[in-house]
Amino acid sequence: MTDDAADDGLRLTRSALAAESPLTSDDALESWLRERAVAHDFDVTLSALSELDGWFFEPEYGDLVHRSGRFFSIEGLRVNVGESGWDQPIINQPETGILGILVKEFDGVLHCLMQAKMEPGNVNVIQLSPTVQATHSNYTGVHGGQPTPYVEYFRAPRPGRVLVDTLQSEQGSWFLRKRNRNIVVETTEDVPEHEDYRWLTLGQVLRLLTVDNAVNMDARTVLSCMPFAAPPESEAEDGYRAALRRSIDHSPGRHSTQEVLGLLTEQRVLQRHVQRRIPLGQVAGWDCSDMEITHEDGRYFRIVGAHVKAANREVGRWSQPLLEPRGPEVSAFLTKEFDGVLHLLARARTEAGSLAGAELAPTVQCSPGDRRGLPSPPYLEEVLAATGDRVRYDSTQSEEGGRFYHAQNRYLIVEAGEDTPADAPDGFLWITVGQAMDLLKHGNYLNVQARSLIAALHTTW
Amino acid sequence: MTDDAADDGLRLTRSALAAESPLTSDDALESWLRERAVAHDFDVTLSALSELDGWFFEPEYGDLVHRSGRFFSIEGLRVNVGESGWDQPIINQPETGILGILVKEFDGVLHCLMQAKMEPGNVNVIQLSPTVQATHSNYTGVHGGQPTPYVEYFRAPRPGRVLVDTLQSEQGSWFLRKRNRNIVVETTEDVPEHEDYRWLTLGQVLRLLTVDNAVNMDARTVLSCMPFAAPPESEAEDGYRAALRRSIDHSPGRHSTQEVLGLLTEQRVLQRHVQRRIPLGQVAGWDCSDMEITHEDGRYFRIVGAHVKAANREVGRWSQPLLEPRGPEVSAFLTKEFDGVLHLLARARTEAGSLAGAELAPTVQCSPGDRRGLPSPPYLEEVLAATGDRVRYDSTQSEEGGRFYHAQNRYLIVEAGEDTPADAPDGFLWITVGQAMDLLKHGNYLNVQARSLIAALHTTW
Repeated sequence: MTDDAADDGLRLTRSALAAESPLTSDDALESWLRERAVAHDFDVTLSALSELDGWFFEPEYGDLVHRSGRFFSIEGLRVNVGESGWDQPIINQPETGILGILVKEFDGVLHCLMQAKMEPGNVNVIQLSPTVQATHSNYTGVHGGQPTPYVEYFRAPRPGRVLVDTLQSEQGSWFLRKRNRNIVVETTEDVPEHEDYRWLTLGQVLRLLTVDNAVNMDARTVLSCMPFAAPPESEAEDGYRAALRRSIDHSPGRHSTQEVLGLLTEQRVLQRHVQRRIPLGQVAGWDCSDMEITHEDGRYFRIVGAHVKAANREVGRWSQPLLEPRGPEVSAFLTKEFDGVLHLLARARTEAGSLAGAELAPTVQCSPGDRRGLPSPPYLEEVLAATGDRVRYDSTQSEEGGRFYHAQNRYLIVEAGEDTPADAPDGFLWITVGQAMDLLKHGNYLNVQARSLIAALHTTW
Repeated sequence: MTDDAADDGLRLTRSALAAESPLTSDDALESWLRERAVAHDFDVTLSALSELDGWFFEPEYGDLVHRSGRFFSIEGLRVNVGESGWDQPIINQPETGILGILVKEFDGVLHCLMQAKMEPGNVNVIQLSPTVQATHSNYTGVHGGQPTPYVEYFRAPRPGRVLVDTLQSEQGSWFLRKRNRNIVVETTEDVPEHEDYRWLTLGQVLRLLTVDNAVNMDARTVLSCMPFAAPPESEAEDGYRAALRRSIDHSPGRHSTQEVLGLLTEQRVLQRHVQRRIPLGQVAGWDCSDMEITHEDGRYFRIVGAHVKAANREVGRWSQPLLEPRGPEVSAFLTKEFDGVLHLLARARTEAGSLAGAELAPTVQCSPGDRRGLPSPPYLEEVLAATGDRVRYDSTQSEEGGRFYHAQNRYLIVEAGEDTPADAPDGFLWITVGQAMDLLKHGNYLNVQARSLIAALHTTW
């Protein structure tokens, strides 16, 4: 680690531990959030797919596409993972968007310029978002809309210093090989604060992360990539906090990083992954109609249409398909101390749309509704049965409201019980938080659910 | 770096510097190579694609496929990279093969178990290959052939200690998203030495790497992933060698590793990469006949058929398509010292079949024949004009003879002239050898041509 990187980690940690911002008091933050929710006059109406302006099923493959040939499309995919195989619809958006947080020091404390952003699929009006959250079509003006504020800080040649810059995956079960650019840039310039934007400390952002549906997925994934240093030792800290400190601080874990990479390579080979594009109309087990695209047994998700009217977006009114999951997912990391160092139990998981094969996912990641009639996945019951202090984080968070409709998942961080075996079963792996943070310098190692939980972990100090 | 990793680096370096093996003298090595070339009774005859046993153009997409549905296929691809776009045929082999080298200490010196292997596309009979070089179909016996010797050392649960285990890309211009597992395993067991295999020091292997077409591509890529330590300081060393030592030793370079990763992310976004499978018959600019698949202007490559008869392979006789490049490629790294540390000028390069977008490629990577009528790419003339001591490596090496027919490329490592600007143009980047080796712990950062040159760099000590 260079000195600069170590210094960045300490400054991020100081900001995360900050009591209150000198710029935006907690009271001011609350009233701003309430006020923006009211100001965002918007309206979402679900509709038949055939009624979406500009969208149609193209004749050759039956894909649901936009007449511009841009944005995204709904396509058919035939997937094999190891010995399993299935067909499904999938969102193909071969664009790399920007998820960028601008940071700046005020009174010696780093602040993040966060946005109150409305997305059509949100269960609530607005959620806290990165400074810039824009697809390539957005920020290059394909929509013909207003320019994306602050995007100049994230496109080369940019003023400021880059703290994080990496392409990270998004939901592999719903997106085909999707990646977005997670980027954090520090500026020393004067930056105007538009009405939808506020400078907040990381402490303020992390406190909101313990509230349901307040910080959006895009902000959570960027937070997860930030190279926090270990918080200072405190006299009052319990064993969990001491173990977390050592884990963030790169104390040696059960496996060397070389072993972690080797075990993931092993799983990428074992979970042999083959993707084949097929016509949407030939996707076995799914019905594709003018109304919606839906699974025969009502599992997994459906694709519906939405008409959106919004005042504070680049474009004021538009139509688009949205993916509506059938039920909430549970994503949970079990934690355990080994030699006084906190470890997370990660699972190598290959999803339909994965770009590079298996990524490290939470211990549990499943939608219980989709699994009716099937045995519970490992550790689900242990996670749901945990009570009291063992539950370090338990919150419902939303997935990307620009593509998903009312996608709310429950996220948990739970200390494993005394009798949870130290030996990880095949495909599972105990890693330290420091190792997870090192892997997050690269893309396609931790999936987006695992990254939401890494961000959440920083609320458990 | 853990102590184990540092120790591995030193042991690899000691083996690379070893004068002669206590097991296999240089004379014995030479006579073994001559003897194996004679013993390998094999014969390759080119043929029309329509005459290949078991291969046919399937009616739906026009892909050239095998009747088993396994092995590989030739498909059509429509590609966009930034503002450019083109169609081309591409090899799709959605399998991860094993390129594995078994190592063992004899008299305190690490030895590699290397294979004398015949491949149908080789210009010569045999080349030095990894202990195991096998596709998934090979080593799981889909061919119905003989078992792959030594494969048990590379499949879990394996005896021995893993030194390297990573999925690396292969030719992105010819393969669709191809990766092979590059793996090095150390054993302390007694290992029988079959007649096609010999224990060699890395010094012996590297000396063969200065000979044309002696060490195959698969061996070169595994060698490039080995975590060598810096060789010891010697009194006689010149400035180049001293700078190389510091570079391998992770002396700070012009850019931090965070900056290197950020610059590559930037290029991955700028070189926006979209791949779309299209029917082989619709590939613009290419002719697809019963005889061959060929470019209208005779550029790039053609796909031809081959009948193969070989005594020492899992299967003794078979037919397959091979890709024959039209002309040799030149791949070269320019090097330059900054503050006494050797740097390589890498270029971020997106190829048709790239899995994750741009990878770091050599300074120059081009096929002059394909570029007739076009301006020379940057640095080509400087590389070809260099003479004397500035040329640190200059050798013709073969690409994978299992898929490519007579694919011989010229590889060079050349010290930049005094007047080569220190500032890298857009898309180029000065990196240290230590940084390249750190990146090689991960896949899809250095392309296969760059990796061949990293292996070659270890011959320039």
